Amino acid sequence: MQNNAQPQGPSYKIDFKCSPDAYRHWKLKFADEVAELVMDVDENAGLFPGYRLKLNSYDLRVDIELADALQRLRFEHPEAKVVVLKSGKDKVFCAGANIRMLGEAAHSHKVNFCKFTNETRNGMEDSSQHSGQKFLCVVRGTAAGGGYELALACDQIILADDGNSTVSLPEIPLLAVLPGTGGLTRITDKRKVRRDRADVFCTVEEGVKGKRAVDWRLVDQVVPNSKFDAAVVEAVKKLAATSDRPAGAKGIALTPLTRTIAGDSIKYSSMKVEIDRPGRVAAITLLGPTAAPPRSADAIHGESAQFWPLRLSRELDDAILHLRLNELDIGTLLFKSQGDPVQVLTYDALMTANASNWLVREILNNWKRVLKRIDVTSRSLVTLIEPGSCFVGTLAEIAFACDRTFMLDGQMKGDNRSAGTITLSPLNFGRYPMSNGITRLETRFLGEPESVEKARGRIGQPLDGADAASLGLVTETYDEVDWADELRIFLEERRSFSSDGLTGLEANLRFAGPETMESKIFGRLTAWQNWIFQRPNAVGAEGALKRYGSGLKADFNPERV
Amino acid sequence: MQNNAQPQGPSYKIDFKCSPDAYRHWKLKFADEVAELVMDVDENAGLFPGYRLKLNSYDLRVDIELADALQRLRFEHPEAKVVVLKSGKDKVFCAGANIRMLGEAAHSHKVNFCKFTNETRNGMEDSSQHSGQKFLCVVRGTAAGGGYELALACDQIILADDGNSTVSLPEIPLLAVLPGTGGLTRITDKRKVRRDRADVFCTVEEGVKGKRAVDWRLVDQVVPNSKFDAAVVEAVKKLAATSDRPAGAKGIALTPLTRTIAGDSIKYSSMKVEIDRPGRVAAITLLGPTAAPPRSADAIHGESAQFWPLRLSRELDDAILHLRLNELDIGTLLFKSQGDPVQVLTYDALMTANASNWLVREILNNWKRVLKRIDVTSRSLVTLIEPGSCFVGTLAEIAFACDRTFMLDGQMKGDNRSAGTITLSPLNFGRYPMSNGITRLETRFLGEPESVEKARGRIGQPLDGADAASLGLVTETYDEVDWADELRIFLEERRSFSSDGLTGLEANLRFAGPETMESKIFGRLTAWQNWIFQRPNAVGAEGALKRYGSGLKADFNPERV
Repeated sequence: MQNNAQPQGPSYKIDFKCSPDAYRHWKLKFADEVAELVMDVDENAGLFPGYRLKLNSYDLRVDIELADALQRLRFEHPEAKVVVLKSGKDKVFCAGANIRMLGEAAHSHKVNFCKFTNETRNGMEDSSQHSGQKFLCVVRGTAAGGGYELALACDQIILADDGNSTVSLPEIPLLAVLPGTGGLTRITDKRKVRRDRADVFCTVEEGVKGKRAVDWRLVDQVVPNSKFDAAVVEAVKKLAATSDRPAGAKGIALTPLTRTIAGDSIKYSSMKVEIDRPGRVAAITLLGPTAAPPRSADAIHGESAQFWPLRLSRELDDAILHLRLNELDIGTLLFKSQGDPVQVLTYDALMTANASNWLVREILNNWKRVLKRIDVTSRSLVTLIEPGSCFVGTLAEIAFACDRTFMLDGQMKGDNRSAGTITLSPLNFGRYPMSNGITRLETRFLGEPESVEKARGRIGQPLDGADAASLGLVTETYDEVDWADELRIFLEERRSFSSDGLTGLEANLRFAGPETMESKIFGRLTAWQNWIFQRPNAVGAEGALKRYGSGLKADFNPERV
Repeated sequence: MQNNAQPQGPSYKIDFKCSPDAYRHWKLKFADEVAELVMDVDENAGLFPGYRLKLNSYDLRVDIELADALQRLRFEHPEAKVVVLKSGKDKVFCAGANIRMLGEAAHSHKVNFCKFTNETRNGMEDSSQHSGQKFLCVVRGTAAGGGYELALACDQIILADDGNSTVSLPEIPLLAVLPGTGGLTRITDKRKVRRDRADVFCTVEEGVKGKRAVDWRLVDQVVPNSKFDAAVVEAVKKLAATSDRPAGAKGIALTPLTRTIAGDSIKYSSMKVEIDRPGRVAAITLLGPTAAPPRSADAIHGESAQFWPLRLSRELDDAILHLRLNELDIGTLLFKSQGDPVQVLTYDALMTANASNWLVREILNNWKRVLKRIDVTSRSLVTLIEPGSCFVGTLAEIAFACDRTFMLDGQMKGDNRSAGTITLSPLNFGRYPMSNGITRLETRFLGEPESVEKARGRIGQPLDGADAASLGLVTETYDEVDWADELRIFLEERRSFSSDGLTGLEANLRFAGPETMESKIFGRLTAWQNWIFQRPNAVGAEGALKRYGSGLKADFNPERV
């Protein structure tokens, strides 16, 4: 597979920073408690050359804007109880991921593109469940493939009964790939379509419309044109009644991130990234707060996007995405921190005390999503707990997301910073579930639930190397004599392994225990899709993705594997 | 990837029929309530030329014998409460799957080999949970990779504390593939090894031994040589006390299957397979019983392996495995049946009434496993309910395992057989759970549990087309005018799709709802492994599987996907 659509050149090609004034593909409109999120893709504004985004098809850029819009809906529009997702085009809702883009993209780009779009759609469901922002999808025209998958991420789908509007998942008949942006999982597990009907639906290129779409639970309502607007109004009203968005709250502006890129380092306001290219390692250093936290929810509101936990979560999210998409050869992320543990704990306490405040809720939800993004990042994840670090509560959660956590036990000669510790806060015990539905500590201690309780008993206490090790919170502790050598050996060893082997290993070991619809999307569905994305029937010169639109039929190897 | 190890020539190359007198790799020994299952692989008796099965490494033939031995332990040895799994070699327990075999096998063979070995190991856990046959694994020497995965399938693992005996999963450091025979799932979900320790364990080529192996929950006990035999005796005693194997029962002989292969058809005593090679379809016709069932458990015992439900389940298993491994281009399995529905229902009633009898329990467990084997068979599965068919209870379960079920409504002109019906029995409501832990009807009606109850209310009643359709038990009904055309169109359409796309589609749509350790093995773990089995880092000319043992290190693309 050649990488045509994603140039290998400059590292910062794909930028996740985004703001509404730069949107090319989406429009946001507001009226009281209702927001309209209008998809109106500019076919000439694709992320890469070589394809046009016809028929509201999308590429990663379209989804970066969507993710940005969702963040703004959460933070800037507390009044928006219902988001009406609709198309700005006449006869099409959305044609799904752009096929030419997919056909020409490198394998890694396909995989990363799908992962990000999955995260964005999971984020819509997260908004609905945890931010009280309900999604109504209004489908006029065709919602095909990724277009229908976008609809599936909404709470409700209303389909026009006009003889033209349909929903479909034509990936199998047209492209020989899966509806891999959650489609296969959501039809069976969310909408609970009967499996044989789902099989029919996924093999009927033209899709399903009208009454059958309702009978099969593919949509919630079909409504003729004459009654359509009234039905939407009615559905909005009902959905709004289920929302717990705050009354009379004023949103905060998600101001642009502070970010300076210089060579192999990236500086944000509250963290930095340093890339060791020969070592294939990126060190991400989180910087603790420089001042005491504000003293009330109002004061948090006053700090708005500058409030340290929010600022850090946004910057961390940007860095992770950048590394995923633009730094493919960086195999290991090393998380470090610097700051005053007491201050970090105070911030966690402030958020815990104000957890029911709408803005704090959004900040905590954002951390939850960023942590989940780390969980599914296919790089080896390592935390280093060193003197002067501040892995406390929310930041300690990053250590629990990692494949390994190493702790330097004691101080370093000639360094007067305090020995590294780890401190738990109440936020480690439920506020940040993983995609498997349980916390990182519960996942870690699946075989010894009593260890979770033991850890809970130590909330707020700085745990040194001996304590952290005996509580099972770190992988290894080393003294200063061994520290550098042990790290060097570990990183060299990691670098010697197959990148793909590690991806598979980590994708399995990180998710012990239960599965949820969300974890099934990243496990079962994504893994099969990635396999198909390697198979000649899809991506070979005579495969369906390559031949789509060429007038030639794909030439399939019939062998069943 | 070239297929060197698996010749494409004669179709019946891989035969799943097996009996102890032909074992080359295993020995079974019996003493009272204890059976010894000794792995002693003959390195010169590989299934294909080109490799030697050194160090108790295994290929599919070794596993076919193992699966056969497990069946005999269940049916022929009701007295065996504990199975002690051990090695017949001096310094090695088992080195895992043979690497040269894996390196040279076609992708499809790798995948099918792993699937079968997974089924066999799941079967050991099934024996423990549902047949009262407990497995004690006695490890002296190294248990590496698939060797340790075999141990993981046992209830308990005792490791010798002799400085030499170790357990390891060296796939990542040595071969760039996953411990894909359940290993990654069982260490986190069954033995509940802490995830960072699991990560360490899977990257340490030499493995773990002694006290650490117990501390990390990798084994249950380490015992020095001087106390080893006594510890085994003690463990056997304790395990035996947890067994509910019957006292004083006499086993039945699993006599050889009756099978005649002629061209593209295979005849068994209670079913036949007919291959339509241009259509890429295999029709599997199940034949109902030719006589009324015996009247008691004793009489069932008298019929032994000739008892129709047992005979059919064994034959069906053989056919499915044959088609999977030897008929790769056959994309669709069409299940049909012929027989008297009333007779089949009587057999189900007999088994239900005697469900606690040890032999009947084994027969039902066997059906459960065969049905699960159908669920994970990567072919499109279709049931045709036609006049004269007998899809009743246990046989109806096959229809519920299928991607589509078509029913001919009414009789056929010039055919005096009764119109096809479907009849439910109590066995459809719990005795045959899928790997996701719930029944096929519960999976089917995930969105409408009331439909399961509605169906339950109709147990024992022959349901015609209208009834079956209104109860949601079939996909479509057609009358005789449309039947042939609709089928033809469906099969042509199915044939036009990408084989790989269908594999991924079916692997997702069939398993709605919850996941279990077993379904995670076939979903998450297997799908990732299959992806890796396509990646150049593993299987390319410079990949780890190809270069293993060549003295050259693998050359990896560092790109993280």
